[in-house]
Amino acid sequence: MGSFRGHALPGTFFLVAGIWWTVKYSIWHATRRNKGIGSTRLASRASQRRLEIIESSVILFFSLVGMLAEQFGSGGPKLQLYDFVEKHWDHLHSWHHATMYLFFGLFATVSLIIHTTEAAPLALDRLMLAIAFFNEGFLFLYHLHGRGMLDVHVHLLLLYAVFGETLVAFLEIFHRGNIILELLRCTLTVVQGTWFWEVGFVLYPPRGPEWDLKDPNNMMFITMCYSWHLAFAMLIVSVLYCIVKSWCCPTGSSCSEEC
Amino acid sequence: MGSFRGHALPGTFFLVAGIWWTVKYSIWHATRRNKGIGSTRLASRASQRRLEIIESSVILFFSLVGMLAEQFGSGGPKLQLYDFVEKHWDHLHSWHHATMYLFFGLFATVSLIIHTTEAAPLALDRLMLAIAFFNEGFLFLYHLHGRGMLDVHVHLLLLYAVFGETLVAFLEIFHRGNIILELLRCTLTVVQGTWFWEVGFVLYPPRGPEWDLKDPNNMMFITMCYSWHLAFAMLIVSVLYCIVKSWCCPTGSSCSEEC
Amino acid sequence: MGSFRGHALPGTFFLVAGIWWTVKYSIWHATRRNKGIGSTRLASRASQRRLEIIESSVILFFSLVGMLAEQFGSGGPKLQLYDFVEKHWDHLHSWHHATMYLFFGLFATVSLIIHTTEAAPLALDRLMLAIAFFNEGFLFLYHLHGRGMLDVHVHLLLLYAVFGETLVAFLEIFHRGNIILELLRCTLTVVQGTWFWEVGFVLYPPRGPEWDLKDPNNMMFITMCYSWHLAFAMLIVSVLYCIVKSWCCPTGSSCSEEC
Amino acid sequence: MGSFRGHALPGTFFLVAGIWWTVKYSIWHATRRNKGIGSTRLASRASQRRLEIIESSVILFFSLVGMLAEQFGSGGPKLQLYDFVEKHWDHLHSWHHATMYLFFGLFATVSLIIHTTEAAPLALDRLMLAIAFFNEGFLFLYHLHGRGMLDVHVHLLLLYAVFGETLVAFLEIFHRGNIILELLRCTLTVVQGTWFWEVGFVLYPPRGPEWDLKDPNNMMFITMCYSWHLAFAMLIVSVLYCIVKSWCCPTGSSCSEEC
Repeated sequence: MGSFRGHALPGTFFLVAGIWWTVKYSIWHATRRNKGIGSTRLASRASQRRLEIIESSVILFFSLVGMLAEQFGSGGPKLQLYDFVEKHWDHLHSWHHATMYLFFGLFATVSLIIHTTEAAPLALDRLMLAIAFFNEGFLFLYHLHGRGMLDVHVHLLLLYAVFGETLVAFLEIFHRGNIILELLRCTLTVVQGTWFWEVGFVLYPPRGPEWDLKDPNNMMFITMCYSWHLAFAMLIVSVLYCIVKSWCCPTGSSCSEEC
Repeated sequence: MGSFRGHALPGTFFLVAGIWWTVKYSIWHATRRNKGIGSTRLASRASQRRLEIIESSVILFFSLVGMLAEQFGSGGPKLQLYDFVEKHWDHLHSWHHATMYLFFGLFATVSLIIHTTEAAPLALDRLMLAIAFFNEGFLFLYHLHGRGMLDVHVHLLLLYAVFGETLVAFLEIFHRGNIILELLRCTLTVVQGTWFWEVGFVLYPPRGPEWDLKDPNNMMFITMCYSWHLAFAMLIVSVLYCIVKSWCCPTGSSCSEEC
Repeated sequence: MGSFRGHALPGTFFLVAGIWWTVKYSIWHATRRNKGIGSTRLASRASQRRLEIIESSVILFFSLVGMLAEQFGSGGPKLQLYDFVEKHWDHLHSWHHATMYLFFGLFATVSLIIHTTEAAPLALDRLMLAIAFFNEGFLFLYHLHGRGMLDVHVHLLLLYAVFGETLVAFLEIFHRGNIILELLRCTLTVVQGTWFWEVGFVLYPPRGPEWDLKDPNNMMFITMCYSWHLAFAMLIVSVLYCIVKSWCCPTGSSCSEEC
Repeated sequence: MGSFRGHALPGTFFLVAGIWWTVKYSIWHATRRNKGIGSTRLASRASQRRLEIIESSVILFFSLVGMLAEQFGSGGPKLQLYDFVEKHWDHLHSWHHATMYLFFGLFATVSLIIHTTEAAPLALDRLMLAIAFFNEGFLFLYHLHGRGMLDVHVHLLLLYAVFGETLVAFLEIFHRGNIILELLRCTLTVVQGTWFWEVGFVLYPPRGPEWDLKDPNNMMFITMCYSWHLAFAMLIVSVLYCIVKSWCCPTGSSCSEEC
């Protein structure tokens, strides 16, 4: 992952996930108001479930791809954990990243089981999501030993979004369907996505000069950038929400049942 | 902002905001008890909304003024972010402050939209307020590199109020209309207001000798001052609450519908 | 306060407060089950209120005494904050302690007003209590500059109880009358009380040799002592709860209305 | 405890406790859905209580055994706290461990009283459990003075599970019977169990070479191991939950009343 592409890829995934979640929750919130008759409700619940299953499958697929890419991509450990010749751990960074993907894969698996079989309580998917985000932040936290000051700083800033999402997903166990929490989670996911791109641009500038990793002014500038990313993510989520809303509920008072 | 006036101005804004919120929530709490007939309730709800719209407009106006003043005031960056001649970031402190105002402006904008159009869920304004305060504290936290010990300390003390307000505003998403939380938020806003003045007096004394920024006794004194500001803010909020109350509910048991 | 007596006195106050609260809440919990007839309930509510008023008055009285003792006791600042001759702050420790008492006095004042006039919402007393504890912990935190390692440690341990009580009192705003939270608060108050005594014995041993403030073994021992104080406080609160219970509800199933 | 066996033993206890709790809560959750007739419900509640009493007795027994083993095992302090000859505290580590067992013993005692006599409110057992876990983490935190970097790190990682369980048990005071929280607690208990084994293998390898306690790569590897333990614990809890479920509710829609 120590490359521009290695940051742009997960960034794109989180960005797409954040945008997709925003659209999904906005539609659900718009149609929820609409107290339709029994059969319509049932139909909409079945279609919701179908959507969840598709979403979980896609996340599971990309988690597997991510794990395989980390393991068997160029410079990956190819499932070898310990280098017995040189007597040291092999490619620990790749293993760390694969472990992060693993937990998102576990989230997707559990979500898939919940929505296909009803075997487990519904709120379990939020707990698994919270754990996946927590694990991501936890590994990042112990990932930064001996790096440059700015390098550490841009990764620590990421943790605000990651642990923020952990907290929000955990709260959703108790407040499922709260649109405020859902949109906040979407916003933080978009922040993660754009911030991964930013980190790529700062640490591995595709062109132009290198950044001075020890300049405190750069740190102050990057911190402010993080606020701007947050504002930008809030803007994207708001605009998406309004578009979905005006599409589903064109007259304002009555929302169409399916949109 | 590195001046006495630069601290007195935001201090005054927060002070006024804290006092205004105290009056507003006190009136609403006093009249809420009063289970009036349907039409009166409706009228009062309409007048509440009008008040919220005016308030949001005023906050939006001052946020814009603040941003413009930081950018185009004397010594401001005039929208220039990077000094290509000297090859360093330009006026990062002013940009930081403008970013803080930006988030309060976003809060006001969203609040305005919520109360004029009903497009978004009501609780969103509390989330935006929580984010605005969080962003203020977040930028302050990475703002203090290389300053004197007392300078850092007075700014860190401010963060108790700022992050306290973040937490309270976040809790209000789930407990909207809880007078205890509302008054606590008012109190912390007043603390912020008076503390900004205090910081101005300590770091840029308008007359009299400079403070020794390295004396631990000064730190201990300033810490105690913070407690006194808190006690003073609690006093102001209490007195205002009682005045409003005795004005709205003169006989104690029955409160007039409009006060 | 830098003496054995200076720690034994507040310790005694907290110990008495913790024991008193345990008895009070145990009685209320025992009689609450008892769904008496309207008039009895009313009588019991009036007697509860009377009890709260007496309690608040006592706390207010001792807060005033504490403030006066800190100011005018031997070695106190006698309301003089700045020594203009020597050009330094005067007796900041005494001022800190007086400020701590001030906040408990404010709590008692507000509690008195709430229970005599009904002017303010009931939950406000828990908020004031939370703020009083928070302020105590906050001042302690910035109180420890330049002291010996063990001295700092014993005061930091105290903060677990103090900030624990802050949290519990804050939660009680939303869960008033939850016996679990009330007993937890009682326990932590007793811990505070006995721990103040312990601190007195360690830092100012009335007889016997001085403690070595730099020995890490002493730190490990003291930490374990804190656990023992907690266990001891839990024991006291449990025993008191059981005594009150068996006195109020002698037959187990039916509790007498007044005990 | 400074040995392989000293870590394997508590690890085994936590592992067994985690597995047992998973089975218990899974059965209860499976049968709870089943709205049986009054008498069946009553019977099931009586059998639940019997189970709780047996569980508490077993925990109490092992806490006592643990305390006695720490005190009178080879190299134990034999209740002697201070070595008056050499003038230092005696065997503080053993005393620390005994204190940890003490709090789990207190939890078991209170749980026993609650479920045999109904003298105390039900939620008290969760508070006692939270306090027992908090105390364990609290003592671990001040237990690590002057040890090697990796030694400190593996113990700090344990604190994530310990304080996580504290938080979950505390939340269960308010959300008793929430299967998500219960399974999370089970998972963290299993993590504690397997991690104690891991710590034993790392610090006191039964065979093979010693670990280099200062190698940052070892730290990164161990951190990742913790994530794997978490994933493994989640797997165990999930599999157990599914087995119990398919056994109790073979047809999916209807669960047998007793399983």
